[in-house]
Amino acid sequence: MRQKIGILGATGMVGQRFIQLLEHHPWFEVAWLAASDRSSGKKYGDAVKWKLGTELPERIAKMPVSPAVPDDAPKVIFAALDADIAREMEPAFAAAGCAVISNSSAFRMHENVPLVIPEVNADHLPILENQTWRKESSGYIVTNPNCSAIGLVLVLKPLVERFGIDSIFVSTMQAVSGAGYPGVAAMDILGNVVPYVKNEEEKMEAETLRLLGARDGKIVNPLPAKMSAHCNRVAVEDGHTESVSVKLSRKASRQEILDAWRDFTPLAGRDLPTAPAQPIEFTPLEDRPQPRLDKMRGGGMAATVGRLRPCGLLDWKFTVLSHNTIRGAAGATLLNAELLVSLGKLEAGKPEATKPDPVAVPA
Amino acid sequence: MRQKIGILGATGMVGQRFIQLLEHHPWFEVAWLAASDRSSGKKYGDAVKWKLGTELPERIAKMPVSPAVPDDAPKVIFAALDADIAREMEPAFAAAGCAVISNSSAFRMHENVPLVIPEVNADHLPILENQTWRKESSGYIVTNPNCSAIGLVLVLKPLVERFGIDSIFVSTMQAVSGAGYPGVAAMDILGNVVPYVKNEEEKMEAETLRLLGARDGKIVNPLPAKMSAHCNRVAVEDGHTESVSVKLSRKASRQEILDAWRDFTPLAGRDLPTAPAQPIEFTPLEDRPQPRLDKMRGGGMAATVGRLRPCGLLDWKFTVLSHNTIRGAAGATLLNAELLVSLGKLEAGKPEATKPDPVAVPA
Amino acid sequence: MRQKIGILGATGMVGQRFIQLLEHHPWFEVAWLAASDRSSGKKYGDAVKWKLGTELPERIAKMPVSPAVPDDAPKVIFAALDADIAREMEPAFAAAGCAVISNSSAFRMHENVPLVIPEVNADHLPILENQTWRKESSGYIVTNPNCSAIGLVLVLKPLVERFGIDSIFVSTMQAVSGAGYPGVAAMDILGNVVPYVKNEEEKMEAETLRLLGARDGKIVNPLPAKMSAHCNRVAVEDGHTESVSVKLSRKASRQEILDAWRDFTPLAGRDLPTAPAQPIEFTPLEDRPQPRLDKMRGGGMAATVGRLRPCGLLDWKFTVLSHNTIRGAAGATLLNAELLVSLGKLEAGKPEATKPDPVAVPA
Amino acid sequence: MRQKIGILGATGMVGQRFIQLLEHHPWFEVAWLAASDRSSGKKYGDAVKWKLGTELPERIAKMPVSPAVPDDAPKVIFAALDADIAREMEPAFAAAGCAVISNSSAFRMHENVPLVIPEVNADHLPILENQTWRKESSGYIVTNPNCSAIGLVLVLKPLVERFGIDSIFVSTMQAVSGAGYPGVAAMDILGNVVPYVKNEEEKMEAETLRLLGARDGKIVNPLPAKMSAHCNRVAVEDGHTESVSVKLSRKASRQEILDAWRDFTPLAGRDLPTAPAQPIEFTPLEDRPQPRLDKMRGGGMAATVGRLRPCGLLDWKFTVLSHNTIRGAAGATLLNAELLVSLGKLEAGKPEATKPDPVAVPA
Repeated sequence: MRQKIGILGATGMVGQRFIQLLEHHPWFEVAWLAASDRSSGKKYGDAVKWKLGTELPERIAKMPVSPAVPDDAPKVIFAALDADIAREMEPAFAAAGCAVISNSSAFRMHENVPLVIPEVNADHLPILENQTWRKESSGYIVTNPNCSAIGLVLVLKPLVERFGIDSIFVSTMQAVSGAGYPGVAAMDILGNVVPYVKNEEEKMEAETLRLLGARDGKIVNPLPAKMSAHCNRVAVEDGHTESVSVKLSRKASRQEILDAWRDFTPLAGRDLPTAPAQPIEFTPLEDRPQPRLDKMRGGGMAATVGRLRPCGLLDWKFTVLSHNTIRGAAGATLLNAELLVSLGKLEAGKPEATKPDPVAVPA
Repeated sequence: MRQKIGILGATGMVGQRFIQLLEHHPWFEVAWLAASDRSSGKKYGDAVKWKLGTELPERIAKMPVSPAVPDDAPKVIFAALDADIAREMEPAFAAAGCAVISNSSAFRMHENVPLVIPEVNADHLPILENQTWRKESSGYIVTNPNCSAIGLVLVLKPLVERFGIDSIFVSTMQAVSGAGYPGVAAMDILGNVVPYVKNEEEKMEAETLRLLGARDGKIVNPLPAKMSAHCNRVAVEDGHTESVSVKLSRKASRQEILDAWRDFTPLAGRDLPTAPAQPIEFTPLEDRPQPRLDKMRGGGMAATVGRLRPCGLLDWKFTVLSHNTIRGAAGATLLNAELLVSLGKLEAGKPEATKPDPVAVPA
Repeated sequence: MRQKIGILGATGMVGQRFIQLLEHHPWFEVAWLAASDRSSGKKYGDAVKWKLGTELPERIAKMPVSPAVPDDAPKVIFAALDADIAREMEPAFAAAGCAVISNSSAFRMHENVPLVIPEVNADHLPILENQTWRKESSGYIVTNPNCSAIGLVLVLKPLVERFGIDSIFVSTMQAVSGAGYPGVAAMDILGNVVPYVKNEEEKMEAETLRLLGARDGKIVNPLPAKMSAHCNRVAVEDGHTESVSVKLSRKASRQEILDAWRDFTPLAGRDLPTAPAQPIEFTPLEDRPQPRLDKMRGGGMAATVGRLRPCGLLDWKFTVLSHNTIRGAAGATLLNAELLVSLGKLEAGKPEATKPDPVAVPA
Repeated sequence: MRQKIGILGATGMVGQRFIQLLEHHPWFEVAWLAASDRSSGKKYGDAVKWKLGTELPERIAKMPVSPAVPDDAPKVIFAALDADIAREMEPAFAAAGCAVISNSSAFRMHENVPLVIPEVNADHLPILENQTWRKESSGYIVTNPNCSAIGLVLVLKPLVERFGIDSIFVSTMQAVSGAGYPGVAAMDILGNVVPYVKNEEEKMEAETLRLLGARDGKIVNPLPAKMSAHCNRVAVEDGHTESVSVKLSRKASRQEILDAWRDFTPLAGRDLPTAPAQPIEFTPLEDRPQPRLDKMRGGGMAATVGRLRPCGLLDWKFTVLSHNTIRGAAGATLLNAELLVSLGKLEAGKPEATKPDPVAVPA
């Protein structure tokens, strides 16, 4: 018996990835699909412009697209909405008692909404108990970060744990799929670079420091580090590449850093279906990672890091790559849902049934 | 009567740009073309695989490709050779009394070889008098920097002059034409990023600091700043885009920086044919500069800068763009030659005829 | 004194090309710009998202965008509107006495509207005298063909004249700029081919046969040939490439075909500023024409043809390339306007002033 | 016990695909790897520049690269060599008693060498008994076609069977991976089309007609149809797209053609591991097939066809897509090997052991 889940924003790029990733999922079953009014009432196969290189599953193609209201929706909702829409709709579902596992930016920085990467800060989850919805209907919202932040944070987390981090410099080369569909115009990106992604630098900086921060009771304090992000769009379909420099709080050798990355397996033993065995993969090749060759490592859920070398300005520099619509979006949401299951928190309607020790999450 | 010049490496990408830029040049006339033994003896039109979007001039197509020896070569040589070949060949031409204006990296960091951008450090030129060839045959070598350094240095120079610079961070997104032809394989770059360009970070860091350094008599001291470069290759035909952060020695406002860039016209009044009126163009548009739209500013000789904004780590950050095979290669060499003409130093065979005050170059 | 012209659809891709091509035009001066209600009232520089690699002229940037009504518009209008809008708006301008030189498909196949390429079928122009507007207000509409038809028709015309054509096969690889802005989504075309351009095959077939047809009094009869077009979109910014096979009515040798193309200079002596000296350029190189290298031949107004070789099915096959937004759109409209000037037909308000012999147009 | 196989040309693009496709193969095990002298003696992981988006299997990475001589090679060889090298090397292996299953063009048109697609012309296999090597050492050569021919032939075969084909027109848009590595230069294909692939049109035409031809005893007669191919290279990583028109020998309705494609499952019941259940997949979507979205259908082994519509010149036109390095190269060779196993012909050393009825192959 798999848990029935619903998808808000099912026809968009991230919604499509949800369907792809859930096709053979052992714990979850897509039972309800909602999209904009324009699609509502159609069969999903007629409403969607399917853009993935695997086929749309026939069962899903025949499902109706429901109106985006909680009435008949399952109690577990995967949300892939634009921020403006999410700002109104996600609270409505949470108020109706749903666990809203969201990829939207709308509530990521809200003080009571956990912004979580399971390997990084599962111990931030308890702040969801502060949410009014949680108290009233047992519903809640949990979010995952922006596609540009997630690979970076995975790679930085073990450095924060072992050495501390004072300063972070990152310059991104982001794939077009991060902008949804139709998103970036071909005229803008063919043979070109666009050195601007709206609001991205602000989000990337704030989310990174929050994710790497520490929970103090009901509050999350961001990591007290300095950070600067340059965000660029390049002519790549999938996979965000990032040039990173860091200053550590205490000096570390190359080998110590490699060890920190290799040893970083905080979810080991939890058996989450979507969690990669090795969330950070280091490549020793001088010209890697590359989006075309490395984005699918760990089923698209691993961050690949390479080119570790001394930095003339900070301490070390390296290149990070992760798949922006799997690890950076749909897979992130899905992994959050799996974590919540393993913590007994996903049956949103029965908070009393959660496992007894909500703070004993991996940290 | 235009000065006759010869081109070493005439069939390569930079050699082709020389021919394109010199087609209607008021001061110089292509009189001699040399390339590898494979091409020697053929007509240029048969030896070259012309890769530019303007047509190969008919006069040039009919010219013979000469052996790469100084015997019948003009006394002014534009050189576009691979470093390994340049290391042997350029000294041979200098020893034979030629002024070798070179785009190669072979001698850029040699203590007696000027590495020059006319707008930036024309006052470094006098160190060429230290060259043995200069003394013996009156020949010499002058070089221009790497394509990734040149736009950056143009944009930094007025900041160094007005405020001083302590730290420089740069992450590049470089066009494929920078690697020559055939250069980058399509399989490596289509829909991809390669976070590595061989030796590029080292060259970019060393050349930038040297170009921004000060001449002390016969010696150039590099700028005493810290610098870190990340070099990446992207799927762009022409135009290097760079994400830059700087720490200034004294604080400057946004307006002061814009003023410094706007006022930077060190070649004003010299009437060099290839010099752009405004070597640094600032764009106020939030998503610019972009290679496809901005690379041809100033005839491909201007650096475009945009997105000036505070940096969370250093003081300011911005994006720089310049055309890598015009300003970053062939146009750089040509502008050096024009500067040497205006200083009376190009008639290599007659050093006594140079204008009296070699140190009174623009600074 | 240059003729004042107005532009309908001035902010779109073709509108921008009009502005670029007219910047230094000896006969025409941009005096009025109109666009959608959203832009109306703004300065053009604020209303447009300029997408060309040359700078927006300052004079134009400061011009106001007018409402798209004929009240204060000049009597000569260059129109670059979507077909749906053109269908309503162009007649309004023609009825108000304007000469509407249009790039839209709305009226191309109307029996009284000339669909013209100056080198090909200037003798179709007299059918404009059938237009009701012409009779009532002296206004009229003249159109140019689709971007995919124009290069093909140029190359076929001399073959029709000398040998006759029975059958035409063409498969296109069309640039993204042909779809306007934002047009094609990056997600759809990066590393991809889309074997479909809406309505394109139908337009290309019908327009080609009409353009190559003969005027019989007031009527144009299409060329009685068979034709089949496959239209594909590829990841190219500008320049449509077409694989073409033809069956001639009488056999021709390779040399006869080359001669026909070389001799095709029907506008020689007219001194139209935008007309290329050689409208068809043949390239003997085995791997040309290519959009990146050949699209700008003749200032973007020449069609390049290459790879002439026997066809296993019809008689001959070859590859055709032309610039889709210059020769295929804005330049086509402009050249039609220049032709109308040279025929004395452009002063739409004064039909009595046209030169005496309107049928003596080049044929 | 899996059959041990060797790979000739193991470090090239097709060699890498062999390794990828064979990683979990139920019948074959990679036991020997050979490449050029430059690689010989190294570990495969050190010799190869791995260019696929899945990881190089560790077992293979550690295997040594052997000299390309038959001494210690297994008796079943998958060959992925350049034609010039294949011309010398494949006969040496066949003479040494090996079954050489080859992707090279060297012997495809040899009268005694079967050129085979299992679904199309398995009944051509018996001509291998004519090979001298077969008689002397029991070794032989079997080949698969060029990557551009294979998808086309799959789609045409059921039309030939049911309706006959008189004329074939095809215009290709081929991916860069078809040219190997480094193959196409980025400078040549970014934002560009190259309307030329060396020798491709000749190969495509000759191979298509041979594959669709009939065996008469020991001889294969090509299909007596007229054919014309235009071959173009586009900026696509993997997947050849082809615009096709055909004239049938007897008229067929749209539904009859769709039925022919749907019913085409000639390998049903053979259980070949790499054979797709449906070798031809028809897509009803108006803008498909597309390489990015459809190349992996049937695990990269299905041809996708779409846009079936009447042709103004021949009878019907449509678009075909197939993966050029899976179905078009490594997968084709592998499927040939699987067919040979199922026919009892792969144990090259024991011709007496082959199943009794060599002509009873599927047709």
